[in-house]
Amino acid sequence: MQAKQILLANRPKGLPQNSDFKTVTVTLPDLREGEVLIRPIVFSVDPYMRGRMSDRKSYIPPFEVGKPLEGGAVSEVLESKDSNFQTGDRVMVSGIRPYTPWSTASIFPGKDLRKVDNDITPSYYLGVLGMPGLTAYFGLMNIGKPKAGETVMVSGAAGAVGIVVGQIAKIKGCRVVGIAGGSEKIKMLTDTFNFDAAIDYKDNPDLSLAISTACPDGIDIYFDNVGGEISDAVFPHLNFFARVALCGQIALYNTTEIPVGPRVQPLMVTRSILMQGFIYSNYAAEFKEAMKQLTAWVRDGQIKYAETIEEGFDHLPQAFLGLFSGRNSGKMIVKV
Amino acid sequence: MQAKQILLANRPKGLPQNSDFKTVTVTLPDLREGEVLIRPIVFSVDPYMRGRMSDRKSYIPPFEVGKPLEGGAVSEVLESKDSNFQTGDRVMVSGIRPYTPWSTASIFPGKDLRKVDNDITPSYYLGVLGMPGLTAYFGLMNIGKPKAGETVMVSGAAGAVGIVVGQIAKIKGCRVVGIAGGSEKIKMLTDTFNFDAAIDYKDNPDLSLAISTACPDGIDIYFDNVGGEISDAVFPHLNFFARVALCGQIALYNTTEIPVGPRVQPLMVTRSILMQGFIYSNYAAEFKEAMKQLTAWVRDGQIKYAETIEEGFDHLPQAFLGLFSGRNSGKMIVKV
Repeated sequence: MQAKQILLANRPKGLPQNSDFKTVTVTLPDLREGEVLIRPIVFSVDPYMRGRMSDRKSYIPPFEVGKPLEGGAVSEVLESKDSNFQTGDRVMVSGIRPYTPWSTASIFPGKDLRKVDNDITPSYYLGVLGMPGLTAYFGLMNIGKPKAGETVMVSGAAGAVGIVVGQIAKIKGCRVVGIAGGSEKIKMLTDTFNFDAAIDYKDNPDLSLAISTACPDGIDIYFDNVGGEISDAVFPHLNFFARVALCGQIALYNTTEIPVGPRVQPLMVTRSILMQGFIYSNYAAEFKEAMKQLTAWVRDGQIKYAETIEEGFDHLPQAFLGLFSGRNSGKMIVKV
Repeated sequence: MQAKQILLANRPKGLPQNSDFKTVTVTLPDLREGEVLIRPIVFSVDPYMRGRMSDRKSYIPPFEVGKPLEGGAVSEVLESKDSNFQTGDRVMVSGIRPYTPWSTASIFPGKDLRKVDNDITPSYYLGVLGMPGLTAYFGLMNIGKPKAGETVMVSGAAGAVGIVVGQIAKIKGCRVVGIAGGSEKIKMLTDTFNFDAAIDYKDNPDLSLAISTACPDGIDIYFDNVGGEISDAVFPHLNFFARVALCGQIALYNTTEIPVGPRVQPLMVTRSILMQGFIYSNYAAEFKEAMKQLTAWVRDGQIKYAETIEEGFDHLPQAFLGLFSGRNSGKMIVKV
């Protein structure tokens, strides 16, 4: 059995280049007792993967140079020597390292796989019912702690996490304002996802003024997916006792020097502001409850979802790089 | 009855100058029914007062130009037309605006005063049993949440708040490291106040290296009184799930432009760090319990206290300005 794989060729400096990726063909070993051969159907590409390309201390170990990259995926079982799985089952890699290699086929011990429902669109397990959905849920509920009538600001609002944050905040009775880039995304936020207002940062040279107008009562919760200059514009509008859920800093992931910006601490002291970085796995003890709630909201239509789908295994690197130019609306998915 | 008063003459730009203060003599009106005439014995000068000299939105309204400055004080009753108070009683201004004007005598309604014990050094009510002590207690206990064995870093460690933070952290079983300026302060922290290590930022050109050495297991709680470059050196040493209690930013209070520095958000995301600005009055519901605990620790000698005392009402402005050059060890007090 042969498989095509995409490896990390070099650790990128700044924005990754095509030359940082390399495609190879390998021969997989024979399947042993207890093992399962899987074929990915859909891959997820996510901003956090940029961090794993560098050799930095973080919550997940870095990718290794010369080894396949990896990410979330839903796969189909091709062959099984574990009685819990049959050919045709849909599965995901589970456990504390729930990553599938960028390979057209892989072998895993059955104990590291879990089945997913065949009646739910497979890619939803990579989005609203996966890492991005859980990230939105825990960051908003456990750090933001929304109260009805409060104003919630979301940066990167049209991304996989942002659209879920906004819809949960609406369910909780908040005024929801999103920042995104491009008129299509802005239209999607207000028309499809029920945001009260959306600000196009590419079309508002005075972003601070646009924020004032959209948030007449200031901002109580800031769910930050991007960081950098957009956050600089948001910060002065935070209210006393505001909460900032730091989910991602995509604007800074490709910087090669320590980024510099206005210091946030003086305002945080004078207004008693809380800011907290997090990753969804901090809340592993609450996964079941959160998944149950998200699944119910998706089934009854209170949460809608959007995806940008790229076709073809070979397009994984381009789809990933597209995240940094904002090419996706909602979750970026690669269909193999 | 005549009283000498010190007024805010101008709103300072940057570090306040002598010309920003003005001394005048006024005649107080006659005492009416229910009123009390008080004479301050000891005044507190505190870094937060710099904020009130500017016309900025904060948790306390700014001082008014042409009116007396004000701060914490313990006073003696000179004359009373409120049956709850007698000449010779020691009192403090209470309520949500617990400030005494910079005046050698003042008139208050009796309902805005509270008696304090005559057997406790009056200045302690301005320090360990007052705003700085409560600030230390709530910031460390409610934001830092110390666990035995953790490492606690305190900046501005030799100040009124810092010395109390360190001693509470020791009571809670933590390793405690302080940063302060000057060999006398460093000696005081380790010898008098039981800190495990203290770093002289004036004598360590490579502050980061000194922090590594003093904190071999990294930092779990950072109680920040100063901000600026000292915090920049501390931040990279924060552990996963570290908590940062933002108490003050004295290094930045006199800046005239928005200060710029390394962005903290990327590290906060990768290490799931929490940072929270606060003021002691956020925890008003817990004052009684905290005062009871602090008083018990002071009475049984588990918390010691230090003061720098300036003599004379006219020295109030200089004592206040001395805070910004670090002239005080422990609480800065002016004895009238």
